[in-house]
Amino acid sequence: MPTPLTVDPIRLAHGADAIADAARELAAFGWTPATSSNFSMRLDDHLAAITISGRDKGRLGRDDIMVVDMHGKAVGSDARPSAETGLHTQIYRRFPDANVVLHTHSRTQSVASRLFAREGRIRLEGWELQKAISGYTTHESVLDIPVFPNTQHMPELESRVDAWIDEGKPLYAYLIDGHGIYTWGKDMPETRRHLEALEFLIGCELDLRRLSP
Amino acid sequence: MPTPLTVDPIRLAHGADAIADAARELAAFGWTPATSSNFSMRLDDHLAAITISGRDKGRLGRDDIMVVDMHGKAVGSDARPSAETGLHTQIYRRFPDANVVLHTHSRTQSVASRLFAREGRIRLEGWELQKAISGYTTHESVLDIPVFPNTQHMPELESRVDAWIDEGKPLYAYLIDGHGIYTWGKDMPETRRHLEALEFLIGCELDLRRLSP
Amino acid sequence: MPTPLTVDPIRLAHGADAIADAARELAAFGWTPATSSNFSMRLDDHLAAITISGRDKGRLGRDDIMVVDMHGKAVGSDARPSAETGLHTQIYRRFPDANVVLHTHSRTQSVASRLFAREGRIRLEGWELQKAISGYTTHESVLDIPVFPNTQHMPELESRVDAWIDEGKPLYAYLIDGHGIYTWGKDMPETRRHLEALEFLIGCELDLRRLSP
Amino acid sequence: MPTPLTVDPIRLAHGADAIADAARELAAFGWTPATSSNFSMRLDDHLAAITISGRDKGRLGRDDIMVVDMHGKAVGSDARPSAETGLHTQIYRRFPDANVVLHTHSRTQSVASRLFAREGRIRLEGWELQKAISGYTTHESVLDIPVFPNTQHMPELESRVDAWIDEGKPLYAYLIDGHGIYTWGKDMPETRRHLEALEFLIGCELDLRRLSP
Repeated sequence: MPTPLTVDPIRLAHGADAIADAARELAAFGWTPATSSNFSMRLDDHLAAITISGRDKGRLGRDDIMVVDMHGKAVGSDARPSAETGLHTQIYRRFPDANVVLHTHSRTQSVASRLFAREGRIRLEGWELQKAISGYTTHESVLDIPVFPNTQHMPELESRVDAWIDEGKPLYAYLIDGHGIYTWGKDMPETRRHLEALEFLIGCELDLRRLSP
Repeated sequence: MPTPLTVDPIRLAHGADAIADAARELAAFGWTPATSSNFSMRLDDHLAAITISGRDKGRLGRDDIMVVDMHGKAVGSDARPSAETGLHTQIYRRFPDANVVLHTHSRTQSVASRLFAREGRIRLEGWELQKAISGYTTHESVLDIPVFPNTQHMPELESRVDAWIDEGKPLYAYLIDGHGIYTWGKDMPETRRHLEALEFLIGCELDLRRLSP
Repeated sequence: MPTPLTVDPIRLAHGADAIADAARELAAFGWTPATSSNFSMRLDDHLAAITISGRDKGRLGRDDIMVVDMHGKAVGSDARPSAETGLHTQIYRRFPDANVVLHTHSRTQSVASRLFAREGRIRLEGWELQKAISGYTTHESVLDIPVFPNTQHMPELESRVDAWIDEGKPLYAYLIDGHGIYTWGKDMPETRRHLEALEFLIGCELDLRRLSP
Repeated sequence: MPTPLTVDPIRLAHGADAIADAARELAAFGWTPATSSNFSMRLDDHLAAITISGRDKGRLGRDDIMVVDMHGKAVGSDARPSAETGLHTQIYRRFPDANVVLHTHSRTQSVASRLFAREGRIRLEGWELQKAISGYTTHESVLDIPVFPNTQHMPELESRVDAWIDEGKPLYAYLIDGHGIYTWGKDMPETRRHLEALEFLIGCELDLRRLSP
């Protein structure tokens, strides 16, 4: 029988504050409309802090953050974790260096996901800001962001993410059709940088499409 | 002869503050240009608080809110209720669970109402954020927002709204051609969520239309 | 020999503060880029307060406002009034009820002025917000905003404005090609309402044009 | 052997504060996504203050600014200057009157640079706001902003800038393909005015292109 998981209260408080601060700023950008979006941070090898479902992301406090294990099960709380919690913990299981996952729902992200759903990916190339993604050093690189079909059945989505990774394709972020983006990084600043860069680049692609004859 | 209606001053003060707070935030989004828009809250079975006509929605105080009965007649005030007051009280009469009505006038709402006026509705489907409307649990649902012709004669508008409801069609919100949106909910947070989700989704539909070949 | 004009210092201070407050808010909307735009208020039958040329409109103080007579000549100051001062005083001479003139330079205004320069006007009809213009009571009215050719020679512009008025056509605002908008009203709130409504409606017309097949 | 360069600490503190203040405002406009952009100010004939690579431009303090000589070499610091430092010092070497260089990375700038890369320039004419560029007195002037191909090899970019100047063509700013804008001026207010005017005008050109049949 496994030892019950215990939560380090200091680490949790720091994690919850970092999530709430980021959420407030992302909400101010308009990327979390109508209580959408969710955010998490790895606490240790077994646990992560994550936003409770349905809260206004512009006004999060410590009470709006809960703890889950790496399979998305609530730890020390009766609150309901977001239906999408499994997508967060999947990232922590598959990418040992990922310590923060941000999922937002901007208009640019939602619209782009619909437009590129059939192709199954958005290809970014020729943009200087690709260099904001860790590991990219030149605008001459190619950065593919997959667009997965939407479903209310999370295991189906998780298996599509697993399949992409198992094929050995690089993965820094993904979109879900009619929904938003998931991206991650080693810490909050890197993940914020990834999110801002991807929102910017996807917006640029939409603008180019509008403007090209 | 009916007993005269009396206003609970505490309840009115709370309602007025809730309306003023919401109005300030919606004004900051730019959804209430040029003193447009109006907001109300049900006080009890017979009375509602509603914004007085023509005030700047970004700077409302308690003096900018008045009380009307469920037929839109002023109660305990000489102020002029908005010409559109009847559309608010109609919602309270027809939907017993509705306790807040928000009417805004964003550029997205105005433009979409013109574009979809001939079809008489905007059909939303395939968007995850449809789940922000109470009762919707999947992006695979269909959400129709009717667009009614504009008129300065309110009873004509009211009878179109009645006709839609009497046909048994679901109604969560409606647009008026060349004008804005009306939406409602059981309380202020739910109504705010409905309004934010609809503004977002209608904006997405316009973007898709711009971007589709 | 005429009595020299004297400035009421209290009235000037109030006018300057009202101009600076409005300018700060309009600058925050992004409608006064790169020190463009100018604002004025009638002080009495002979004098008006107006912004000094080239100042950042987001940070105006009393020292950034000067007094001119109704022909645009500086009174009690060595500062240089804006080259466009004559367009302000023309409005005060031609419209005795106008007490405030606001000229801004938003991207919407500049782009629309180029697009509609050949037609010489933007025609607004079918929009509820036309009712924000004093004297308009229905969306079924027609509201024409002339677009005059740009010139660095102000008397040429003034004579075009005079010609439009002399033909008996209503005039609530005008655009200058490649430039911005001028609008006015009986006081600051009415003029702000006119400006916000026109910015909104011109933006809606551009959106409709983008979206119509 | 040359005398070692010494930094005037007062002048450096003033320069760093001016850079941090401007950066905060430009970040709030959304023109510095994902730690992009860099800013500098000439300190004297031999030295300039410049932002250290990779910092969040919305939260700069004095520790985020370093000193370089006119060939981009760090002075009195082990910090890594931005890879693009050479583009800043080139401007100071070639234009003795330039004392501030601002490089931002807005969506408008990035998209326009892609669209106009083949033509190698954006031509601005007919806009009143061209007068915000020092030396321009009429909208009837022509203002060409070159668009240079992107490269991670800075000397190649520098030689393209040199070639443009050596041909005797006027140069007030340039874009790099898939990247952002560089502009400069005699002091911070003039350079800010140039940057705001160019962002505005390039945005107007994109809008006109979207709207023209």
